[in-house]
Amino acid sequence: MEAWLRTAINQGLIMITVNKPMHIFDTAIALKHGDEGQYKGQTSPNYANMVGPFGGIIGATLLNAIIQHPLRLGDPLSLTVHFSAPIADGAFSVEAKAVRTNRSTQHWYVELIQGEQVAAFATVVTALRRDTWNQLDAIFPQVTPAADIDPMPSIPSAIWTSCYEMKFISGFPGRPSSASNSSESLLWMRDQPARPLDFLSLSALCDAFFPRIFVRRPKPVPIGTVAMTTYFHADAVQLAEQGDAPVLGIARARNFSKGYFDQTAEIWSTSGNLLATTHQIVYFKE
Amino acid sequence: MEAWLRTAINQGLIMITVNKPMHIFDTAIALKHGDEGQYKGQTSPNYANMVGPFGGIIGATLLNAIIQHPLRLGDPLSLTVHFSAPIADGAFSVEAKAVRTNRSTQHWYVELIQGEQVAAFATVVTALRRDTWNQLDAIFPQVTPAADIDPMPSIPSAIWTSCYEMKFISGFPGRPSSASNSSESLLWMRDQPARPLDFLSLSALCDAFFPRIFVRRPKPVPIGTVAMTTYFHADAVQLAEQGDAPVLGIARARNFSKGYFDQTAEIWSTSGNLLATTHQIVYFKE
Repeated sequence: MEAWLRTAINQGLIMITVNKPMHIFDTAIALKHGDEGQYKGQTSPNYANMVGPFGGIIGATLLNAIIQHPLRLGDPLSLTVHFSAPIADGAFSVEAKAVRTNRSTQHWYVELIQGEQVAAFATVVTALRRDTWNQLDAIFPQVTPAADIDPMPSIPSAIWTSCYEMKFISGFPGRPSSASNSSESLLWMRDQPARPLDFLSLSALCDAFFPRIFVRRPKPVPIGTVAMTTYFHADAVQLAEQGDAPVLGIARARNFSKGYFDQTAEIWSTSGNLLATTHQIVYFKE
Repeated sequence: MEAWLRTAINQGLIMITVNKPMHIFDTAIALKHGDEGQYKGQTSPNYANMVGPFGGIIGATLLNAIIQHPLRLGDPLSLTVHFSAPIADGAFSVEAKAVRTNRSTQHWYVELIQGEQVAAFATVVTALRRDTWNQLDAIFPQVTPAADIDPMPSIPSAIWTSCYEMKFISGFPGRPSSASNSSESLLWMRDQPARPLDFLSLSALCDAFFPRIFVRRPKPVPIGTVAMTTYFHADAVQLAEQGDAPVLGIARARNFSKGYFDQTAEIWSTSGNLLATTHQIVYFKE
């Protein structure tokens, strides 16, 4: 650097900023603020699914409306998203309101509106958390490290899959195991390109597991998540500790019946902390 | 019966009705209709908890507002209840609205209001269900039949416990197992007095499991469910088949950390059908 430039910077006459391009995830969930709790957003082609956007990006967008709300108290504890109608590619508006604010918890309701109809909505609890007695009952699976597994190629018809690195240990979709009658999958996963983990990206990762029916049956059928709930077991500091290293995901179903199945998953940090548990109810045809 | 009476009945001149007293559960969740989607209700002393009413009866009351709504399409598929504030003994109002109605699913939002504040709210999916490919992945536990187990005595400080027959196979609260490091309980359960199972009573049973922290730790601490979600795997016909026989419940927690733990449960019919799966996030002190 030339001497005059260094002097000018040191004297505060010039400031140099590096314009780091936004991560595709942050671009996809970005919201433009209007009046308090009112936002505008739009779907991202990067996270397109076969029909409409990837559900996880919609959930993260709704959660983002709460995260950015000036009245927010604490960090996300639970997120329930209802996918109430197909979402068209393009613009939408979001309206968030605090239904009830307590001393250490806050309950939220947020809607995604397209064409004057509610295309998706969510309820959220945010909470101030502090250290207490703690006990992990779930078991962290001992598996092959992510570094030793090749990532799955992305699926051209589901563009959003190119936004995630998925390294399967077991339960690859479309290959039902003859040995076990199970819908379980175990995989390492992270944003692609890598991005430090936070509540927003974790909420989307919770919906990045393939529908269990694709693991359980060789024949693909039309499906759609109807509603999903995520519980966050970690606070912001624990998520920051994970950085952009892969998280371990385990997903399974309990029952497929009369057009619907449930899907439940755990997401673990590399070092064995349970970060989130998540549940969804999924429609399937035939 | 005298001949003249029989003749009068046969001719439709006289109708005899038996006034069977309402079950305490139905009295507790009863709603008085106002304008469309508007109701009045009140807490029931039979289902009182240590502070305010038993959460399961609040969830069932909110679900009842949907069940009784003239615009309802199909049967409950999912129910998420937020316990947003303490509920005082006495009167409350309920407001339910269909957020979005599709061809075979409907998404609902319903609030319980006390003192012009939202004390609890819920989101519901109702759906028309039909026979499809089906597959049960969860395993029905082989346990001692309900007839061979003594019911737990009710807990005087939690009056609602007298409204349920609970027959523990394992995981009795206050007796942490030294053999297993687990928060799991297995028990037969039903309404007391017995009542035929339906979506309403099933939704309340899903919240009748003792908090897992009472099973995991010998020392009782203040707790409160913050939010819970139930998925209904059975349709109305399958629930009716169960009648008033005991259902088998299995509950466990995955993680207790920073003031909150999760609790997940399955409810099975006597014959091994999975009727519901349920998840909640619970606050605990210390």
